[in-house]
Amino acid sequence: MGDFELKDEDLAGRIGILETKHSKLETPVFFPVVNPLKSEITIDDIKQLKFKQFITNSYILYKNNVIQNNVHDDLHFDSTIMTDSGAYQILQYGNININNSEIVNYQIKIKPDIAVFLDIPTGNIDNFEDAKKTVEDTIYRGKETLEIIKDEQEIVWVHPIQGGKFLDLLSYSAKAANNTSYKFLALGSPTVIMKEYDYATLIDMIFTVRSNISRGKPLHLFGGGLPQIIPFAVALGVDSFDSASYIIYARDNRYITRTRTYKLDELDYFPCSCPVCSKYSPKELMEMDKDSRIRLLALHNLYKILEEINDTKLAIKENRLFEYLQEKSYSHPAVYSAFRRLLKYAEYLEKYDPRVKGEIKGIFYFDETSFSRPEILRHYRFLDSLQKHNRNAVIICGDNLTVPVINDSKVRRILLKRYSDSDIYVALPFYGLIPAMISESYPLAQFEMPTELSTEVISKTITQISNFIKSKKYDNIEFANCEKSILSHIMSIKP
Amino acid sequence: MGDFELKDEDLAGRIGILETKHSKLETPVFFPVVNPLKSEITIDDIKQLKFKQFITNSYILYKNNVIQNNVHDDLHFDSTIMTDSGAYQILQYGNININNSEIVNYQIKIKPDIAVFLDIPTGNIDNFEDAKKTVEDTIYRGKETLEIIKDEQEIVWVHPIQGGKFLDLLSYSAKAANNTSYKFLALGSPTVIMKEYDYATLIDMIFTVRSNISRGKPLHLFGGGLPQIIPFAVALGVDSFDSASYIIYARDNRYITRTRTYKLDELDYFPCSCPVCSKYSPKELMEMDKDSRIRLLALHNLYKILEEINDTKLAIKENRLFEYLQEKSYSHPAVYSAFRRLLKYAEYLEKYDPRVKGEIKGIFYFDETSFSRPEILRHYRFLDSLQKHNRNAVIICGDNLTVPVINDSKVRRILLKRYSDSDIYVALPFYGLIPAMISESYPLAQFEMPTELSTEVISKTITQISNFIKSKKYDNIEFANCEKSILSHIMSIKP
Ligand SMILES: [Zn+2]
Ligand SMILES: [Zn+2]
Repeated sequence: MGDFELKDEDLAGRIGILETKHSKLETPVFFPVVNPLKSEITIDDIKQLKFKQFITNSYILYKNNVIQNNVHDDLHFDSTIMTDSGAYQILQYGNININNSEIVNYQIKIKPDIAVFLDIPTGNIDNFEDAKKTVEDTIYRGKETLEIIKDEQEIVWVHPIQGGKFLDLLSYSAKAANNTSYKFLALGSPTVIMKEYDYATLIDMIFTVRSNISRGKPLHLFGGGLPQIIPFAVALGVDSFDSASYIIYARDNRYITRTRTYKLDELDYFPCSCPVCSKYSPKELMEMDKDSRIRLLALHNLYKILEEINDTKLAIKENRLFEYLQEKSYSHPAVYSAFRRLLKYAEYLEKYDPRVKGEIKGIFYFDETSFSRPEILRHYRFLDSLQKHNRNAVIICGDNLTVPVINDSKVRRILLKRYSDSDIYVALPFYGLIPAMISESYPLAQFEMPTELSTEVISKTITQISNFIKSKKYDNIEFANCEKSILSHIMSIKP
Repeated sequence: MGDFELKDEDLAGRIGILETKHSKLETPVFFPVVNPLKSEITIDDIKQLKFKQFITNSYILYKNNVIQNNVHDDLHFDSTIMTDSGAYQILQYGNININNSEIVNYQIKIKPDIAVFLDIPTGNIDNFEDAKKTVEDTIYRGKETLEIIKDEQEIVWVHPIQGGKFLDLLSYSAKAANNTSYKFLALGSPTVIMKEYDYATLIDMIFTVRSNISRGKPLHLFGGGLPQIIPFAVALGVDSFDSASYIIYARDNRYITRTRTYKLDELDYFPCSCPVCSKYSPKELMEMDKDSRIRLLALHNLYKILEEINDTKLAIKENRLFEYLQEKSYSHPAVYSAFRRLLKYAEYLEKYDPRVKGEIKGIFYFDETSFSRPEILRHYRFLDSLQKHNRNAVIICGDNLTVPVINDSKVRRILLKRYSDSDIYVALPFYGLIPAMISESYPLAQFEMPTELSTEVISKTITQISNFIKSKKYDNIEFANCEKSILSHIMSIKP
């Protein structure tokens, strides 16, 4: 159990298959937090929404003696069940009256598919030494747990990674966890950072962990169930999420959308067609008894999280994850900040971004953030390595943003004849220059660009072209078709 | 009938109430095209989706003798019915065998709530004189229709505005239509432009028409039913839409989302929770018989359009339409181009954007397009008109992007004492300078900004500040708190 197979990739995100005893889960996957002692959302509801997995708290099960036999039989669920330890309760109440060995043994007894040992959450600890202690204690408990479980093979055991906002501790903790036989790792609860809207720091944390563990090990993000942040975490390589926010929000009359959270009484219309929202109006929900309202709101909230997961997976399949993040970044300035922080890791995203996909979809270019796309990073590297063949260069401005030159072999032959003593390039926004004689099959030929571009896109493109021309030390450059081009400033470039 | 009352506004968009005989419609509103001769989507389906309105083609009703009595009784619908003339058929087949007088009289007989006379669509005509003829003929028919309907008061008659891509013709046509007793105007079918993804031109067309007709008259956009473009049209002041795309796409196995269109067989998951998508998987839909599949896809597509209308209305209510457009612009480079074209009309958007809203929501700032927000345009005008009181200025960099200075009266008193011989300003991205002594109730104090900003935002802010300082001819400027600020470049500004 715990084998993880990659099916598709985009940026550093991936679709994978995680093998657990009761099902093969397709990742990225979301585990709704279910408390079997509360009846607001039942396991039947979860099944109704076609979830093949949920997470529940083994400490609560233990304290209330919920399970007589095993979780699957007692909770009537025949697909994947993950049990968390009491770490969240430690974070909330400071301590709990059970030790790691007890909770691990209890989990072995109740037989979930995925289990977590009792780690020590760093939470919002400000003092480095105190934070370090949570990391060391967690690592120690990880080893202790291995002693207890011995050759138990049915459960996938998770090693949480602690360190809070201290990136060096996170890095140390990630390496330690990675050097064990645990097959499934997790970033310990960044709930506090999420509550403070400090999504940019969350990006740093996820990057630090993900870049210090093997690509082949799946990574879980505890408490990361907000639709605004899911695709950004996925882009860095997070594979699974869990959250109780859908129900906590519902109890507070909060209605999640894919981009923000509303109070129910602010809504005159539902911007949603889920079975709840297509049946009731906001007014009808407000006037309902509290229990029914909480349940219906929680169901709606779950539908939104499911949609987000599906849309993110679709973006990976379609090689559109970068564009999807660009769009999502406008849901809140904090999300926009997270996106820009993510771009600092553009080299990392490029490293794992697959070069070839089955069917090539046109790339969508938008604004200056599009310069951080893997395709542009690679193209610039390619230009760096390019040898000049002639002492002169001709730059043809891509007419109307199309690239007839590089797509039409006849045009290429004519050009070759006319400018036989020059290296011929087509100038295009974002790309800078593309050698005109390049093969038609060059993947750069399939894209869509806006006809209206920002000043920054144009000036970045021209700087890139200028640097290229200078580095290649051409004697002379000639411009063709550039007078009316969006890149007309290009004509001021001197060799 | 036909009275139109504004309920809420944002940018140049609005929520209104359009009075028709069978219902008061809240705008922006979408009229699904229903053909009673086809059973793919029935009027019962339309009711099921809670539509209080649809549009059907009076030429088809006439040719097939569908109506014996009146549309409401014969089609079993007791809310608003709009009938189109045969103009779309003219566009498709060149001509139809009925004249304007006949179709107008037929509509008077079958008693829809909203009716359209038989205009001559400009469509994609390239020749100016030919295009002009369609405009003149349409204006003539508008007058002819008024003669026929005389004092008929039950039906709201629509005057289509023609001109195609010729903006001067559109302007002429809009003025002519506006100078009549028609209460409801419409922009004639821009379907060709929509098909070519030339959304930027569509923005020009809508602006031209809307800025040449009275604010109090509702404006319909024929054939404008794509979720990508609806909010942009609404922001300029379009009040209603109709489209058959939901069913045309469904026949071609095309699945609409809020941002793009997929072929059904490309989808492994449904990024949607509508009653169709939460019940079936893409595979199940593919394997279904054709008629059921078309119906279910059409229902899904309609749900998406409804969501788009509701989300757009919600954005107007919440004063978030600008932010909503920023987000939506990343659905396709053509939509991004439309958004940037819209920003050329920022002054127009500002003119109608309400200064005061009931509850103040924090404004979200993102990138350089946020400089075109009405709030920033107004702030710059305010700075232009500001008189200096001292010969020196102090600029305090807004710490951590918060504005404690302008929000805390105690801080203001201390500053006033310390810099008693200077005009005191707080520097903030986007805003440039805000006089520190300004009232706390100044609406600028409520906003969210990214902590990570683009180069262009920073340089535009500094240019704005520099221009302000120079225009006020201060003798001396002092900087406080700016060394570590995101705006640290500010310190190079000399008076
Ligand atoms: Zn819903
Ligand atoms: Zn759907």
